[in-house]
Amino acid sequence: MTRSVRTITPETTGGTVARLFAEHNIGSAVVVSSEVGNPIGIVTQSDIMQQVAAKADLNTVRVDSFMSTPLITITSTEDIYTAATLMKDRSLRRLPVIDEGNLIGILTTSDLTDYLPRLRNTISRRRNELVNY
Amino acid sequence: MTRSVRTITPETTGGTVARLFAEHNIGSAVVVSSEVGNPIGIVTQSDIMQQVAAKADLNTVRVDSFMSTPLITITSTEDIYTAATLMKDRSLRRLPVIDEGNLIGILTTSDLTDYLPRLRNTISRRRNELVNY
Repeated sequence: MTRSVRTITPETTGGTVARLFAEHNIGSAVVVSSEVGNPIGIVTQSDIMQQVAAKADLNTVRVDSFMSTPLITITSTEDIYTAATLMKDRSLRRLPVIDEGNLIGILTTSDLTDYLPRLRNTISRRRNELVNY
Repeated sequence: MTRSVRTITPETTGGTVARLFAEHNIGSAVVVSSEVGNPIGIVTQSDIMQQVAAKADLNTVRVDSFMSTPLITITSTEDIYTAATLMKDRSLRRLPVIDEGNLIGILTTSDLTDYLPRLRNTISRRRNELVNY
């Protein structure tokens, strides 16, 4: 997972989020409540795209008017296959990782893709073990 | 891979692409030359985000002014680990699949994530083979 997660408040405008995405080369930000700071939703590049397509004024439209909520999350102890299945079933590209109410990271399809070459090594090693048995 | 790939010409405006992305819920489009129709570049949601952040006029800015080119591609006979390694090394989320000059699909990190649960089955099966040897 990616440990640095950008968080924003519900009052943030679409334009501010778009600049945040562009500057940091990221695809999503988790929306946290202004009061307690707990995660309540997520905004992705696709959500911004919808606002652009609808010709919304990005300088005034607030993220709480178009964020995805409630948040679908996963805990850090789940394995990558469970995460992949959840992302596939719910058509998600990002999964905030939350342990005991605390946002500790975000898992993206890029993170899982980066992990794939290691699985080849696992499969190859197991095959070797079989051959050498 | 995803077989339906959206293609656009270099003259297409950023606004048109944003609406294409939003309407079809896609994250990229391959740019093909107006004359021959061969793939010359790619435009992603991140590219549009950069234009929005730079306050470009999406109604007039053409994709050939900000598309990624030359195109990094893969052939359909490569395995998923090679694709994953290429995407990781080049920080790509989409890889057009081209066979003999023809664009036949696009491979995304979501496609690879969707494939992950199948690998669990492969690994489990191999493990069982080992046990039963």
